[in-house]
Amino acid sequence: MISIPEAQDIVLSHTRPLGAVTVGLAGALGRVLAEEVRAPDSLPPFPASIKDGYAVVAADGVGEFPVVGESRAGHLDQLPVAPGSVAYITTGAPVPPGADAVVQVEDTEKLPDGEGSQRRVRICKAAKAGQDIRPVGSDITEGDTVLQAGERVGVAEMGILATVGAVSLKVHATPRVAVLSTGDEVVDPSTAPLGPGQIRDANRAMLLAAAAKAGAEVVDMGVARDTEGHLEGCLAAAIEQRVDVLITSGGVSMGDRDLIKPLLAREGTIHFGRVRMKPGKPLTFATLTLPQQGGRQMLVFGLPGNPVSSFVCFHLVVLPALRKMGGWAEPQLRRVAARLAVDIKLDPERPEYHRCTLQWGPPPLGSTPPPPHEASAHGAAGLGSMELWAVSTGNQISSRLLSARSANALLEIPCASGVIKAGSLVSALLIDDLGGMPVPPGGVPVTPGF
Amino acid sequence: MISIPEAQDIVLSHTRPLGAVTVGLAGALGRVLAEEVRAPDSLPPFPASIKDGYAVVAADGVGEFPVVGESRAGHLDQLPVAPGSVAYITTGAPVPPGADAVVQVEDTEKLPDGEGSQRRVRICKAAKAGQDIRPVGSDITEGDTVLQAGERVGVAEMGILATVGAVSLKVHATPRVAVLSTGDEVVDPSTAPLGPGQIRDANRAMLLAAAAKAGAEVVDMGVARDTEGHLEGCLAAAIEQRVDVLITSGGVSMGDRDLIKPLLAREGTIHFGRVRMKPGKPLTFATLTLPQQGGRQMLVFGLPGNPVSSFVCFHLVVLPALRKMGGWAEPQLRRVAARLAVDIKLDPERPEYHRCTLQWGPPPLGSTPPPPHEASAHGAAGLGSMELWAVSTGNQISSRLLSARSANALLEIPCASGVIKAGSLVSALLIDDLGGMPVPPGGVPVTPGF
Repeated sequence: MISIPEAQDIVLSHTRPLGAVTVGLAGALGRVLAEEVRAPDSLPPFPASIKDGYAVVAADGVGEFPVVGESRAGHLDQLPVAPGSVAYITTGAPVPPGADAVVQVEDTEKLPDGEGSQRRVRICKAAKAGQDIRPVGSDITEGDTVLQAGERVGVAEMGILATVGAVSLKVHATPRVAVLSTGDEVVDPSTAPLGPGQIRDANRAMLLAAAAKAGAEVVDMGVARDTEGHLEGCLAAAIEQRVDVLITSGGVSMGDRDLIKPLLAREGTIHFGRVRMKPGKPLTFATLTLPQQGGRQMLVFGLPGNPVSSFVCFHLVVLPALRKMGGWAEPQLRRVAARLAVDIKLDPERPEYHRCTLQWGPPPLGSTPPPPHEASAHGAAGLGSMELWAVSTGNQISSRLLSARSANALLEIPCASGVIKAGSLVSALLIDDLGGMPVPPGGVPVTPGF
Repeated sequence: MISIPEAQDIVLSHTRPLGAVTVGLAGALGRVLAEEVRAPDSLPPFPASIKDGYAVVAADGVGEFPVVGESRAGHLDQLPVAPGSVAYITTGAPVPPGADAVVQVEDTEKLPDGEGSQRRVRICKAAKAGQDIRPVGSDITEGDTVLQAGERVGVAEMGILATVGAVSLKVHATPRVAVLSTGDEVVDPSTAPLGPGQIRDANRAMLLAAAAKAGAEVVDMGVARDTEGHLEGCLAAAIEQRVDVLITSGGVSMGDRDLIKPLLAREGTIHFGRVRMKPGKPLTFATLTLPQQGGRQMLVFGLPGNPVSSFVCFHLVVLPALRKMGGWAEPQLRRVAARLAVDIKLDPERPEYHRCTLQWGPPPLGSTPPPPHEASAHGAAGLGSMELWAVSTGNQISSRLLSARSANALLEIPCASGVIKAGSLVSALLIDDLGGMPVPPGGVPVTPGF
């Protein structure tokens, strides 16, 4: 049996980033750039006002001035501003030639029109040269690389791409992933009432959702019966669908109808078939080389049938592979340290990936930890007394999918006897966005003075 | 001017969760349940084997036994097991009547067939009654509430829903959101080269992506010119589209063509139009009551035109509103504490939402903090010396969207003079998934002994 880090290394060594495809800007969110993006022009492209107010000659100082023109964003009817005069200007508008500062409207006073309906204004506060003007290229200089190859496009990056006119982009393709359940006892979730010996298929809906959430294009392959012929047919269908990855669940254990491993051994290469982990021991990984499809490679993950095992194995080994295919430079799960809210009993045979819900704050309600070191030093209410706490999801038996409910992390619990005490620091792998984590009753304090 | 917490309270007090809609299981990911989900039957529905092996009578202990039948998952040809005999059984299969324990195949030995081709096996390890059997209902009991109203459906919850046959679900509707840019200088991102005085529209692509990422259905309303008539037409079009929320950017400042506030004051009620924050001061929030549409309410957020201001304002006030509409019980941004990697200059006039990239690990490269308290106590490499660090995105001017690049949090920086020193703890609001945060060069250590 190998360890999970070894299994992860093997999987990633057989995984390559997919090639580049071209997408429009609207399709770029969440994708990874396959080439750098450069700015074709400077931003701002002209000296731009930061405020609504008056473009002035700074050396003129305070006083009453004729308003000789106006510069509005998007309009070009501006006059040059000579010493002793000013121009009205709006936020983002080009500063007229001759002016070298902007005085915000709050620091001015409108005066009655002068001779010949000449508009006039009082400048109440002297400006420094350059005040409230963004020089050409101060935000982005023409030719700058604004985003690197390998960067993921988030919300801000969508704005950056739009601002430099990158409306057609080379990004990594996203993997195409098929999900197949196996087992004669496994029936569609819509089955009601259940027949004798039947259970509903939890894994397929879950794994399809997990792959889709990871950005993959998913193909639902249904449920395979426990016969060699049916399994072979399902594998052939997945190949026909030209998927990059096939995820199966069930059929990898020690039973005489556990036919996945023999099938994969016949059709490809099994790289591992047992992993020292709890849950998930029978986890299997194989690659198939497909001469009928130009020799391309397909990855197959044989996940255990127990739903929690397949949930945990997906996150530990399949998700990093999907991320790497999609172009992530650092595809592994992110590790943090968290303080245990309750004692956890250790397993003497295998290291355990204990499902938990991380939350930031004081010790959670119902926890039994000793006060952490820093809490006493900083007082109960301070930022320094707040920590990342790991709240167990309860009974961790691998059939009990409720142990994954609301879980946003997997704790790395050593293989040993005894218990690991509440209040201990343990490492945790993030499997869901902490943006939805539980909020402690009193909230988390803000920066002092904010 | 009001504060951001006041603004957030006002917005949420005018926001109601949307009504329930029915979706199929495949459409449930990311939605919030509008009613609880109960299990119609127990799981397992029968006493189920945890292992591949033999169903035995525990009192029989070790010895050689005839194999009188087999119980395979999904097959019902099982015989009762009498004392002195065993049955072959696969993982997840029903334990035959009479048997009260399972001995895993690893603890047995196949024997040559006996008289009349009777299959025989040696049980090498005595079983305790109940061993490796999941009793009926041990994972889920019939009638249990497996998910509560208000819970968000993640990957694990998809599996839980499938397992209890919840293939049709009542979930909160997701908001319909229109995004409108404004400004005569603002042109489509595809414009190249730019004409004099023009800039590309960064906000629309960014805000559409932000709303879509939050689960909203989005409507692109284009760019409004700076005339009352055109703006009125765009507002009417948004109403016609029956959106729940209209997000505009630009046109809320102090200029004479800043027409959004006067328009909203005529057509609805402005609840606030200036907020004490940096960036984002001109942030405006209004509600419109629409008699022509049964008196329904539409929310309008008038965001500032500077792209960073609109990015920050979206996350601080629009996102919580969208979450509340979608059914989130705790829609506010999650707050954590982070240690500053570098000094930050304070602004004496407004509290600042400083964009940063959070990462977990030792002090980041290039940071200048004093070693934190716990590091010295636990040594450089331990879990206890790792923390959440806030790395600034650099120059924070509100026109520089690169200051939002890779940002996953907004630091709450107090309004004061001087600097806040590297190594200080500050509060940070999460705006992106930490599952993609930077990885420190040496990684983060694991639980000792793992």
